[in-house]
Amino acid sequence: MRLIYPENLEDIALGAAVLGTGGGGDPYIGKLMGIQAIRQHGPVRLVSPDEIPDECLVCHSAMMGAPTVMVEKLPKGTEIVEAFLALQTYLGRTIDYTTSAEAGGLNSTTPFTVAARLGIPMVDADGMGRAFPEIQMVTPTMYGIAATPMAIADEKGNSAIITTFDNRWTERLARTICIDMGTTAMIALYPMTGRQLKQAMVPGTLTRAERIGRTIREARQQHRDPIAAVRQVTGAFEVFRGKVADVQRRTETGFARGEASFQGADGYEGKRLRLRFQNEHLVAILDGQVVVSVPDLITVLDAETGEPITTEGLRYGFRVVVLGIPCDPKWRTPAGLELVGPRYFGYDFDYVPVEQRFASSGQGVASPPREGL
Amino acid sequence: MRLIYPENLEDIALGAAVLGTGGGGDPYIGKLMGIQAIRQHGPVRLVSPDEIPDECLVCHSAMMGAPTVMVEKLPKGTEIVEAFLALQTYLGRTIDYTTSAEAGGLNSTTPFTVAARLGIPMVDADGMGRAFPEIQMVTPTMYGIAATPMAIADEKGNSAIITTFDNRWTERLARTICIDMGTTAMIALYPMTGRQLKQAMVPGTLTRAERIGRTIREARQQHRDPIAAVRQVTGAFEVFRGKVADVQRRTETGFARGEASFQGADGYEGKRLRLRFQNEHLVAILDGQVVVSVPDLITVLDAETGEPITTEGLRYGFRVVVLGIPCDPKWRTPAGLELVGPRYFGYDFDYVPVEQRFASSGQGVASPPREGL
Repeated sequence: MRLIYPENLEDIALGAAVLGTGGGGDPYIGKLMGIQAIRQHGPVRLVSPDEIPDECLVCHSAMMGAPTVMVEKLPKGTEIVEAFLALQTYLGRTIDYTTSAEAGGLNSTTPFTVAARLGIPMVDADGMGRAFPEIQMVTPTMYGIAATPMAIADEKGNSAIITTFDNRWTERLARTICIDMGTTAMIALYPMTGRQLKQAMVPGTLTRAERIGRTIREARQQHRDPIAAVRQVTGAFEVFRGKVADVQRRTETGFARGEASFQGADGYEGKRLRLRFQNEHLVAILDGQVVVSVPDLITVLDAETGEPITTEGLRYGFRVVVLGIPCDPKWRTPAGLELVGPRYFGYDFDYVPVEQRFASSGQGVASPPREGL
Repeated sequence: MRLIYPENLEDIALGAAVLGTGGGGDPYIGKLMGIQAIRQHGPVRLVSPDEIPDECLVCHSAMMGAPTVMVEKLPKGTEIVEAFLALQTYLGRTIDYTTSAEAGGLNSTTPFTVAARLGIPMVDADGMGRAFPEIQMVTPTMYGIAATPMAIADEKGNSAIITTFDNRWTERLARTICIDMGTTAMIALYPMTGRQLKQAMVPGTLTRAERIGRTIREARQQHRDPIAAVRQVTGAFEVFRGKVADVQRRTETGFARGEASFQGADGYEGKRLRLRFQNEHLVAILDGQVVVSVPDLITVLDAETGEPITTEGLRYGFRVVVLGIPCDPKWRTPAGLELVGPRYFGYDFDYVPVEQRFASSGQGVASPPREGL
């Protein structure tokens, strides 16, 4: 167990935005909510999965919706507690711990708000080791853990408890409720025992995010290259360097969907990279060839500061470096790829691990050309 | 208290379809479900509002969705009990009675299925004295009674408990959940005390429906005119006689919406009537002039048998009589008209009670022409 103070949250939010692969919400909002809650209620106890009893009850706290809307419709910070308490009331017992659904700028820090306000500890784990756009896309789904009963609440005083017969249905129902609530909502879900958490979640995500964030911060302070520092601490491969040439994004069916294209520079002159996203980056296509895809992480960093840029933050002319980071091994199993592989997202190609594509040089060893991208 | 047997349900479903004003679900489905439940579990005790204690707990049982879909996707008959039990579990106490949300072919008889299967009595009342398409459109809304907590369930094993800050939000959230569930769902809602029911609901609706149904049945058996019999027992005005010339209907935003037009006959030669509907008939327009509108009832009967025809049952060439029936006086108050008057449904004219329009002769005394209909 260790205590998390506002300064830790700064590093966690920064590092989790690297793992957030363009999504997972805006780091600034989550950090502000968490810092305010910690200032009011004191530091949060962060415990590792092996410190919690097998029989305890844990649930995920998160914010759900389209990042494009989240940056315009700020939460008050109390709705997230409402969703958690609604689930607790429904379950008829105290929820002992909360944890992160995903590593992302916002949702890494969202549970700290709940933990601080309710005085409960938070478990150092998450359900992805990165961010993904849909509710069923967590490692617990592979272990047969139900997302429901799930609570969803908005800032207007509306809430729902949903129970579904599988986690895909949870996504479906919760997404339309979320859209009705204004395309952002607060959720509490995946109630599970400590034993289930230890088996099914990705351990140590918060600590990993904090290490990445601290590395970027220290590199900046010491005038070292923050990109090199991120690569070292994450095992990332460099996919591209260049400028944002075009971004097309639309908010539809409750998600921010679109494509960003980049013009090569700094060794990538004449090349063109396209990133397709659904809240998170899904596929990186270099000169017509897939070079990284889900479930591996595609992260866009500001070339100078190493600051991760979310999909909704991409602006014309930004100078960026695009990295590919190997995903958690759980996602590389057949069950994992069925849940979050390229084919689930509608792409007609098989997943190839990023380290196989970039094994030799850290430069693009592209797959054969593919139609229909 | 009296006992309701399958033969009573036949009359209730028939009469309630007259009050259902084209909607409220298909009488045949509700009747079959109710009859099956009564055959299995015995007759249902129907009690009048003044027989129930002030402190008891009552809730509405209903089926929600687009009638166009309901006739294609038949319920098993157990989902409706699931929704009721989900609400009961959430409330943490036994619900003592169930009652009808609306008078309509289906939803007059839906609560009998719950009452029979759970062995609880049903209260002879409803929230409209007719059928309306949206959840907030019940007299309890005028008395400040919340529709939530509300349970909604489908046949696949999905369910939700929703809590909203007003009844319009209940409609909004429940409608999208219902669409996700396949545009039909089973619901339990408007938990209220006996005291609230006595004040806010329309009493005696089931008995009234049964009387109307029995009147039609007996008129047929005795070779009397069933239309004249319906007019006598309901106080209906004759609006039109003719044939269905055209029906345009679409299932959108969870409702069956459209327009039916009729070519005059039997004294209405050369005239044309149009009916606009959203699940239920909203407005009757005779040669361009409004002759009946919500909240008064517009009912289409088969000219020969007196059988009420639902909006989804209208077919080209049917010979029909269209009646206008005065609504419950609660709907004629400013609060009632705000909730279900023509302007709520997007029409730019004021409500005129049907008996004012038809006072003299029982024939159309039309309002001045209106634009934009």
